[in-house]
Amino acid sequence: MRVTRVGDPGAEFPVALDGDGAYDLRGLTSDITADFLAGDWAPRVRDALDAGELPGVALDGLRVGAPVVRPGKVVCIGLNYRKHAVESGADIPEEPVVFMKASNTVVGPQDTVLIPRGSERTDYEVELAVVIGRTARYLPGPDSVPRHIAGYAVANDVSERAFQLERGGQWVKGKSCETFNPLGPWLVSPDEVGDPQDLRLRLWVNGERRQDSTTADMIFDVRHIVWYLSQFMVLEPGDVISTGTPSGVAMGSPDIPYLAEGDVVELEIDRLGRQRQRVARA
Amino acid sequence: MRVTRVGDPGAEFPVALDGDGAYDLRGLTSDITADFLAGDWAPRVRDALDAGELPGVALDGLRVGAPVVRPGKVVCIGLNYRKHAVESGADIPEEPVVFMKASNTVVGPQDTVLIPRGSERTDYEVELAVVIGRTARYLPGPDSVPRHIAGYAVANDVSERAFQLERGGQWVKGKSCETFNPLGPWLVSPDEVGDPQDLRLRLWVNGERRQDSTTADMIFDVRHIVWYLSQFMVLEPGDVISTGTPSGVAMGSPDIPYLAEGDVVELEIDRLGRQRQRVARA
Repeated sequence: MRVTRVGDPGAEFPVALDGDGAYDLRGLTSDITADFLAGDWAPRVRDALDAGELPGVALDGLRVGAPVVRPGKVVCIGLNYRKHAVESGADIPEEPVVFMKASNTVVGPQDTVLIPRGSERTDYEVELAVVIGRTARYLPGPDSVPRHIAGYAVANDVSERAFQLERGGQWVKGKSCETFNPLGPWLVSPDEVGDPQDLRLRLWVNGERRQDSTTADMIFDVRHIVWYLSQFMVLEPGDVISTGTPSGVAMGSPDIPYLAEGDVVELEIDRLGRQRQRVARA
Repeated sequence: MRVTRVGDPGAEFPVALDGDGAYDLRGLTSDITADFLAGDWAPRVRDALDAGELPGVALDGLRVGAPVVRPGKVVCIGLNYRKHAVESGADIPEEPVVFMKASNTVVGPQDTVLIPRGSERTDYEVELAVVIGRTARYLPGPDSVPRHIAGYAVANDVSERAFQLERGGQWVKGKSCETFNPLGPWLVSPDEVGDPQDLRLRLWVNGERRQDSTTADMIFDVRHIVWYLSQFMVLEPGDVISTGTPSGVAMGSPDIPYLAEGDVVELEIDRLGRQRQRVARA
């Protein structure tokens, strides 16, 4: 099952996508909220669709928003693909590297990405995002993780490398600028995604392919990450976890330019859909 | 003006405190929300009190919650007092060191603090917390900061030092454990606080004074911090900024023990009230 939110920023409404059709979800839920995600959302939507309870809706001309309401937190895993760790000049991590993005960085998958004022090194990162469906606290092991996952989405973990690495201290300065987390186009339920460790992820800038890898190459897989995080914090329904980016970012090579005004960034992950952002200056 | 929230966790209601009295704020607002804070809250509460529109309420036996609803984000400044940077073995920062705590760490000022499972180095940090009242994005300079501040509160930035420093990567693992951010007892308006750089802050464990300093010793003051952060992220009403802790934490000396089950931690900042937490194991 796939759901998303459409409409102007701050005024989105939820829709379900089935085959070629879109269906208004407001009869079932006011929005894609934590409560909705915590309540076995996919079979509920399927039942409502099968019962003909959800009216069709035309999406033409409607903006696509992030597929969930603003998360309580956005937790990110750093250096989780071997070649990306190497291109970053970092050691291969022995346990997951964790950082946070401000959750008001989340925008729609086609929204404009803003290069922050003073930035010269704004970079892109295609990532598999996990959305939490049930509260996860001290999970006993990776095998207990699946029932805590509401679904998956594409995320662009936009990053300003000088802010992240050269301004003293922690990475958050380069990760939390406005518009730095396009999410979507869809939230896809685990049954429709299948194995989250068998998804090709790709990113293009102005049509040139920059990243092309598979989630099979993660150092720490989704089950390990969610179990691990639950030992350090309480994950709640609607929280978003970005699981790291593969190699090919601009930081990784002097031959790859950073993002510039007017660039077009496109991202795609198998079964999770495609993003497209135009780049502008804040 | 001072406001807070009282009642069981998740069922708190807002009250105003005036002299020795407490007054039910629900006639004015359902809760201490971002919208309430963004709307010149202190004169509104004063007017309602003066007009006799707020009924008195007895607080006996009621738990005190955090004085604001769960923040959109909790941003923290590290190493912002010279002696604490030295005791931490860190350089004096040239610009603010920024990290985040998960916002579901926020609890009431008298709630139990839980030592995480597997922890041997849970530490305390008394801090001046700033609550944002108006959206702050690329503020032109420190002088434009005051109108963006809704008020101040006491925060305990509880930290697990091994998780923070020895588990790879960023600090967030040692900062986001459940109950790691007692906040309150009150939100105090800027006019009642006066100069935020002239407040004594103290912390005791089992009655022994461990931290005793003044906000005059901050390396970067409140105006600088809020202006600086607004260059890297959009601060929104209800966001909480913890401005760093002075020296005296357990990490700072081999003679100071880390927190243990049954310990009692008390914190106080001039004009912002007093916290008291019992320590237990998760």
